[in-house]
Amino acid sequence: MDIVAASGLSWSAVSDHVERLHAEKLIKVSEIGNSSGGRKPKLYAVNRNVGHVISIELGISSGRVAICDFDSNILFSHRCGVHVSEGPDRVLAHLCGRVKDLMARHQVEPHTVMGIGIGIPSPVEFASGLPISPPIMPGWDRYPIRDFWAKHFDCPCYVDNDVNVMALGEHAKGVNFEVDNLIYIKIGAGIGSGIICLGQLYRGENGSAGDIGHFDVGSDVLCWCGNHGCLEAIAGGKALAAKGEALALAGESPFLLDILNAKGGITVKDIRSGLQNLDPVSLKLVRESGMQIGRVVAALANFYNPALISLGGSVSELGDILLASLRQGVYQRSLPLAARNLQINKSVLGKTAGLVGAAFMTIDQLIINSTDNNPETFLPLRQAADLHKAVPNVE
Amino acid sequence: MDIVAASGLSWSAVSDHVERLHAEKLIKVSEIGNSSGGRKPKLYAVNRNVGHVISIELGISSGRVAICDFDSNILFSHRCGVHVSEGPDRVLAHLCGRVKDLMARHQVEPHTVMGIGIGIPSPVEFASGLPISPPIMPGWDRYPIRDFWAKHFDCPCYVDNDVNVMALGEHAKGVNFEVDNLIYIKIGAGIGSGIICLGQLYRGENGSAGDIGHFDVGSDVLCWCGNHGCLEAIAGGKALAAKGEALALAGESPFLLDILNAKGGITVKDIRSGLQNLDPVSLKLVRESGMQIGRVVAALANFYNPALISLGGSVSELGDILLASLRQGVYQRSLPLAARNLQINKSVLGKTAGLVGAAFMTIDQLIINSTDNNPETFLPLRQAADLHKAVPNVE
Repeated sequence: MDIVAASGLSWSAVSDHVERLHAEKLIKVSEIGNSSGGRKPKLYAVNRNVGHVISIELGISSGRVAICDFDSNILFSHRCGVHVSEGPDRVLAHLCGRVKDLMARHQVEPHTVMGIGIGIPSPVEFASGLPISPPIMPGWDRYPIRDFWAKHFDCPCYVDNDVNVMALGEHAKGVNFEVDNLIYIKIGAGIGSGIICLGQLYRGENGSAGDIGHFDVGSDVLCWCGNHGCLEAIAGGKALAAKGEALALAGESPFLLDILNAKGGITVKDIRSGLQNLDPVSLKLVRESGMQIGRVVAALANFYNPALISLGGSVSELGDILLASLRQGVYQRSLPLAARNLQINKSVLGKTAGLVGAAFMTIDQLIINSTDNNPETFLPLRQAADLHKAVPNVE
Repeated sequence: MDIVAASGLSWSAVSDHVERLHAEKLIKVSEIGNSSGGRKPKLYAVNRNVGHVISIELGISSGRVAICDFDSNILFSHRCGVHVSEGPDRVLAHLCGRVKDLMARHQVEPHTVMGIGIGIPSPVEFASGLPISPPIMPGWDRYPIRDFWAKHFDCPCYVDNDVNVMALGEHAKGVNFEVDNLIYIKIGAGIGSGIICLGQLYRGENGSAGDIGHFDVGSDVLCWCGNHGCLEAIAGGKALAAKGEALALAGESPFLLDILNAKGGITVKDIRSGLQNLDPVSLKLVRESGMQIGRVVAALANFYNPALISLGGSVSELGDILLASLRQGVYQRSLPLAARNLQINKSVLGKTAGLVGAAFMTIDQLIINSTDNNPETFLPLRQAADLHKAVPNVE
């Protein structure tokens, strides 16, 4: 990518800013390109070894912490059991402990940590990093997460919604073709999405954009939100497990009943095991889920007309049967033009999308904020943030 | 608005470009602002008298043509009966005749026409101006609309989807507060939307973004698209009129039956007249329509989290009863955070949104294209396009 063309700034302005990033060692010359006449252009890339970034993904009942390089590659990671209902003080202290353990184990010095990025299952006011009216995180509303980390690390901290962070990661480091408009859908216990619009993360007016879990799919099932017929109450992982349990108890699936008797409950993993063992009830449940989600995805495709819909989350791990029935639902209800070039794929990054995305968000913000906030210098540095992805041509 | 701050370019670069627009008479100094120290800043505005713009809105069974000034104000307009099913040759010839009549009647000289803007009821590939797979315009697929106008006028022509053009017009000249993210919904015979994202029109990958008429609202009604339960088959103007007719024939509404007997059919206008005459059947139909549309709008609000949803089209003219039941549907199904600051209002421009928007699109493109396509000069001129809306401060 030619930074001059992409940023719309003069060669000298771009050159100044690239020199500054270079002086700060955030980027480095990766190779000398071919000349089309005149001096040979320099090809820049982020300097992955300039320091470390801590990335954290907080789920409802578990967390993941990682130490990444400055190119969003996960160097070391650790999964831990925490539940958001324990409240922010205990959960953050626990995560911080795991981060420090990980650093000690791998001899990562605190002064090498340049930033911390966190994805949480709540809408977030990105500018302040505050969770806003989290529906499933009691005690977290407007909790100052950044202040907590400032007590432990001498570097900036950035917080965003978990699915937004996954969408960022998947767009920047997962998808292996050029795509400007994509919807990343996380199908886990709940169902949510993150929107990339014209190459940038779109957060909406209140940071709540991407909420699709409460689309009305027409059913009598009561959702935790108080409405009936919400998508996630019918097709999310929790719903899938509950249906599996009910059908096991009704004697329809000897396979699931054995598991229920042995373990006292059914999870999405058991349904996956049902698929592998050709349990017809598990197959039916996954097919129905896929079709329901697909019909909602069709509505999104019609409205947003993206190039790609990327599927992540634990339920999306259910494999080809879910993907096929989801696609069937999409093609049944989407308009021919919106579906013509639409790709519907499983996330390339899979389970690591959140950690990679939290690191990417952090590096992106560090590069943006390395300017003096003069709008004149903002653009080329923002452009340089694209260096994560592409190796641009400066001259 | 300070162009320097907004464009991220240097004072000298902005100054050069503003001078060029000034030399081309596209903008003019409107007043001298207050100084905060140093020279007094100049306040620029588009030069509305530099020439004329022709704007055209093509509906399914009627068209509107207008002559506008260079600030998207309609000077003269004319409504004519054309049906898109007559095919592009006849329809465009008819519209062109009406434009020439209007110009002759008001002594508008052809050399003063600087551009032509058209909104059509089809997805459009904006770069080429070609209709793409229009579902309700037989014979128009990839018809070179621009080439037709080039035979009659020596100026550029721009074509876009009708609802996109309305969204542009409403955003630029209707909404009287600062809003970056809005959805404009046209509720006419069919139902469609246009999306403003971060201040710009969002067209999607294939120019089909904004299609909400075929959202599944769960019903057995067959839509023209071949699916069941599409929103517009249940709540659009055509559906409303058909339901009114059926209920009149079933003897449930003496009011509508009288009209049916007198005129042989029921239209949305008759339903509106039913509201004014407190016909309970008309009231019930409008309420149901509003609730159905509101539930879909709730899904859009959750997904897109806009600041404003603006309602236009003939059905939206049904007034407060439609608006109230639509809002009821939205608040029933939308998430608290997405609905917290959401405004749901009738379009400020009303019936003129399409003509104003087509003029605005044209002026916007003329200003952008007055650059030499050097990306370095692109930004400030794009910024200057915002002069339509705000009077910026250049120094």
